[in-house]
Amino acid sequence: MTRWLLDGEEAGAIDLDDRGLAYGDGLFETIAWRDGAPRLFERHLARLADGCRRLALPPPEPRVLAAQITGLGRGVACGTVKIIVTRGSGPRGYAPPPSAAPRLAVGFSTAIGTHAVGRGARALTSSVPASENRALGGIKTLNRLDNVLAQAEVARRGAGEGIMLGHDGRLVGGTRANLFLVRDRVLFTPAVDAAGVAGVMRGLVLEIAAHHDIPVQVGRGSPQDLVQAEEIFLTSSLVGIRAVQFMDGRELAVGPLTQRLIAALAAGGVVEPAS
Amino acid sequence: MTRWLLDGEEAGAIDLDDRGLAYGDGLFETIAWRDGAPRLFERHLARLADGCRRLALPPPEPRVLAAQITGLGRGVACGTVKIIVTRGSGPRGYAPPPSAAPRLAVGFSTAIGTHAVGRGARALTSSVPASENRALGGIKTLNRLDNVLAQAEVARRGAGEGIMLGHDGRLVGGTRANLFLVRDRVLFTPAVDAAGVAGVMRGLVLEIAAHHDIPVQVGRGSPQDLVQAEEIFLTSSLVGIRAVQFMDGRELAVGPLTQRLIAALAAGGVVEPAS
Repeated sequence: MTRWLLDGEEAGAIDLDDRGLAYGDGLFETIAWRDGAPRLFERHLARLADGCRRLALPPPEPRVLAAQITGLGRGVACGTVKIIVTRGSGPRGYAPPPSAAPRLAVGFSTAIGTHAVGRGARALTSSVPASENRALGGIKTLNRLDNVLAQAEVARRGAGEGIMLGHDGRLVGGTRANLFLVRDRVLFTPAVDAAGVAGVMRGLVLEIAAHHDIPVQVGRGSPQDLVQAEEIFLTSSLVGIRAVQFMDGRELAVGPLTQRLIAALAAGGVVEPAS
Repeated sequence: MTRWLLDGEEAGAIDLDDRGLAYGDGLFETIAWRDGAPRLFERHLARLADGCRRLALPPPEPRVLAAQITGLGRGVACGTVKIIVTRGSGPRGYAPPPSAAPRLAVGFSTAIGTHAVGRGARALTSSVPASENRALGGIKTLNRLDNVLAQAEVARRGAGEGIMLGHDGRLVGGTRANLFLVRDRVLFTPAVDAAGVAGVMRGLVLEIAAHHDIPVQVGRGSPQDLVQAEEIFLTSSLVGIRAVQFMDGRELAVGPLTQRLIAALAAGGVVEPAS
């Protein structure tokens, strides 16, 4: 059960004319609530603000958002926060009406996600491609049907995570996480300029790697890299770093670079960016 | 103002946990209500059923849908019907939960769309690309942020319709309509297998053309075709066939093939498919 505030008021429902429903005209964030506080909050705010800028939506006021989240989580140790920003209600038609007043929904759930348990992830390459659009790449929009269909497919096939490819077969990322792999001792993650999401944990892991002088490449990968990778892991705000134990059936160990990054993250690599 | 029925009951709002809002996990139809009846209703039903099949959603019962629409439109000559089908509410996570009960929202508005008035359309090539995904191409999903951004752009630039291209520059369609053009006396419309929507009016126009022995090509076009086309027109359920009068500033006449198809449509080319 999620408890929701809509524009600051307890609510269960949103206007049927809302453009978030009609067109996915909005953004969301999913934030880990740990030890009574939102984890990596400044980083989530920064990504949300970037998405708002790209969709020409006014970003929510950080202090208002913080107060709402803190109010919902009061007295709870662990949970999940969801933020949805929509362009608000409008008459029929794709063009955002000048009159539209954006809406802010903040949800709190005590669930922390079943994929947080267990050792390594079981991942399969999904046959559902990632939706591509360079105007939307990297931001966490409400247009996520590709992830929905891919996650449904791999769940049917007994896996917890799907690896999604672009129309041209290049690596994009996981269905619920960003993808990292170690190729020739270099840490690699796919670019998210045309598809996928620029994960908050992905950004942090890239910073930690740079801080530890681990060579990093962000760019183009192929399914062949999944076959040849020495190590594969997934990152997400809720789970942190999670090793892939089975990639399309091939068993991998939790490799030295993955272990090193997990240790660095646990040791306080979690740094809020300067605001 | 739109009057809504949600699962058959008058309603103004939908659950904040609905996956239509969270991920755009659903479909919609926009139907012209003319002379007290839904136009091309069987064709809209067929497309909706196809979309439901592709998203693994149970399609709404046609008789229930017809009764709801007729109830909302009683006594009204002209209006617009909107149908939204979502996967319903679920806990957090992309995979559709087995417990999800799909929702059906039916809206009725007496507005008929401002782009239905005036002579020819003013169209501009949009710099916002069409979102591409071969698993979603052709169906009218709730993931429409590409159309939103493209329509916002061309509206700012003073046009009523944007022409959208794929990532590789090929023609996809209009922001609110399907695109047809006449190239070397052949009627051409872009394929919608990887992006765009298989419009109900597009399908009807293709049938009318075939019936009148007009040579038709469905496939790949380029922006150069917009420059060289002898005729350009747009099709949509609400507007029918509408000539493009200005394409990126170039003025076009309403050409002979466009006129012939408009006449054929008006003369009763509107035929419901065998159900």
